[in-house]
Amino acid sequence: MSTDLSLVDVYNETTYKITGHGNRDVQVLKQALESFEGTLNSDMYGKGTLIEDFQYKIANVLGKESAVFFPSGTMAQQIALRIWCDRQGLKKVAYHPLCHLEIHEEDGLKELHHIEPVLLADQDRLIKLDDILHMKENIACLLLELPQREIGGQLPDYQELEEISSYCREKGIKLHLDGARLFEIVPYYEKSAAELCSLFDSVYISFYKGIGGIAGAILAGEETFTNESKIWKRRHGGDLISLYPYILSSDYYYDLRVGRMEQYYEEAKELAGYFNRCKAVSTLPEEPVSNMFHVHFELPKEKVEPILKSVYQEADLGMVAYLKDNSVGGCYSEISIGDRYTDIPKERLEKAFHLLNRKMAEVKSR
Amino acid sequence: MSTDLSLVDVYNETTYKITGHGNRDVQVLKQALESFEGTLNSDMYGKGTLIEDFQYKIANVLGKESAVFFPSGTMAQQIALRIWCDRQGLKKVAYHPLCHLEIHEEDGLKELHHIEPVLLADQDRLIKLDDILHMKENIACLLLELPQREIGGQLPDYQELEEISSYCREKGIKLHLDGARLFEIVPYYEKSAAELCSLFDSVYISFYKGIGGIAGAILAGEETFTNESKIWKRRHGGDLISLYPYILSSDYYYDLRVGRMEQYYEEAKELAGYFNRCKAVSTLPEEPVSNMFHVHFELPKEKVEPILKSVYQEADLGMVAYLKDNSVGGCYSEISIGDRYTDIPKERLEKAFHLLNRKMAEVKSR
Repeated sequence: MSTDLSLVDVYNETTYKITGHGNRDVQVLKQALESFEGTLNSDMYGKGTLIEDFQYKIANVLGKESAVFFPSGTMAQQIALRIWCDRQGLKKVAYHPLCHLEIHEEDGLKELHHIEPVLLADQDRLIKLDDILHMKENIACLLLELPQREIGGQLPDYQELEEISSYCREKGIKLHLDGARLFEIVPYYEKSAAELCSLFDSVYISFYKGIGGIAGAILAGEETFTNESKIWKRRHGGDLISLYPYILSSDYYYDLRVGRMEQYYEEAKELAGYFNRCKAVSTLPEEPVSNMFHVHFELPKEKVEPILKSVYQEADLGMVAYLKDNSVGGCYSEISIGDRYTDIPKERLEKAFHLLNRKMAEVKSR
Repeated sequence: MSTDLSLVDVYNETTYKITGHGNRDVQVLKQALESFEGTLNSDMYGKGTLIEDFQYKIANVLGKESAVFFPSGTMAQQIALRIWCDRQGLKKVAYHPLCHLEIHEEDGLKELHHIEPVLLADQDRLIKLDDILHMKENIACLLLELPQREIGGQLPDYQELEEISSYCREKGIKLHLDGARLFEIVPYYEKSAAELCSLFDSVYISFYKGIGGIAGAILAGEETFTNESKIWKRRHGGDLISLYPYILSSDYYYDLRVGRMEQYYEEAKELAGYFNRCKAVSTLPEEPVSNMFHVHFELPKEKVEPILKSVYQEADLGMVAYLKDNSVGGCYSEISIGDRYTDIPKERLEKAFHLLNRKMAEVKSR
């Protein structure tokens, strides 16, 4: 019977789930709005205390002079790179081959801003100082994504980050942080968000990853930079008459969850342990450095899906909603720990992983 | 005492106001959300029944094959023009000198899309067929804004619209409708939205003008066109993980108010009459053709502001919140009728206009 249902269908039917904060439904917004009075005035085209107070609050958290709220990171980051390119008179930037701008934005950076990216490092590893030292092209800006999502959320050593930052400052290369998951890495580095951001000239953060808001982003840096970003925000069509549905929910869920990042990080390490103890299953990184990691299965999707479906049904616990092929004939999925994990009864978790281990071993040995 | 307060301060303190639907506050969103279940799933990057159903509903209203929800009209319209320019291999469009793209978007069309606009007609009048016939440049697309907001919301005769549409089709010029206030003009033309849209290849409508939503727009046309617009929406950073705060409020306020446009139109005509019977006050158009018009005062701002402030205070009725200089030494403001007008007691309205007439006459005769 389970074979008629897709993996995501079976996943959706389970009572407990190991990833995320909960369903992305309208209740997420309703809950946030309960904390705010109906008489609160809307922001108006980027102005008004509602947006200005939140921008000020987050600028302080990031240790930057100024911050601007954007509807999306796609918009914020293209604009950041455009400003740095215009300042340097050089339409070239460098980033990882699996950078969000390269693989998820329909080439907006190239099509709208005519900026040429230099791809640093290989797809399956982090950018190193050495890659930057040996770059042949001149660039206006280097973008680093911390953690590097598409390879399981890996992170460089803090010392290497400092060296990259120093080198860029010395060479006049602007350093931009794709910090979509910035708060999620604070526990690993044992540095504050502001300390991490001090290495960068501009910073983007997201409010719907670990924070779990509806949508929305902040771009922060010096005031001359953020003022210029507001002009581009208008040009992109992101300077809406009202952004408050996103601002209020970002503010609400930031306050609710920013203090839970240490917990998510510890839970991610625990969960990775469960996966790594299963036959033919491993995580990347082996020990997570944030709330996220990738789980890899040494069997193709067609074999893993039925196994996962039966585990989900027998344990009433969903693990991942989809699988993608990996480059070595197996498959993988992304895990992000949120509020849900802590609610799972331990016996259920152990039952599920006991089943997963047994079924993977059975199929693997055939 | 009133001289210490600005016009907008005095306006804000009045119990009754002649324009708009009400305060732009968080209650507007809370009220809309009350109609929807918390368990309703979010749209996800432009997909899911929540967004698709609304797009389908509005496509039908507009009589177009397909529709796409956008966070803003700025984004939707630049993209529409870009698509038509790409199709024709010609980066030139024509529009009115006071077109939204020319004066309110920080030149996004030029800076992001490198499209050159040809300005048709003079600032103070509508585009006529004759302007198009005598245009020297080849263009890919003509944008018409109905009503032409910046000149009081004027409209061409329907026959002239038909002639412009026929001419453009004959010449292979794409015709795009800036229909930010489309539903507001349906009563004047006595044509359905779909009939009006049938003259155009692509149509943009807004949900926070007469409809009074939070923000959001629809771009409609043939499916090949709207599919392409989704790629550009991603590039612009408008393909948010969740647009539902705007979609649900657009849907709610569309249903609530689309049937009230006739009422707003009749009230606008009544209100324009009140203004036109005052000394040294006139409206543009003299008889409104939608829910909006401009009111002009034959005295400079410095003289009109104290008059308006005392009228607002004595009648406890706010008329306009700001004044702008006009080109003939006087000043003007924009009026848009919404839900508020009908709640004003007639005696209060008559008292206010009696006061306005007397005070304008007094100052005018000095």
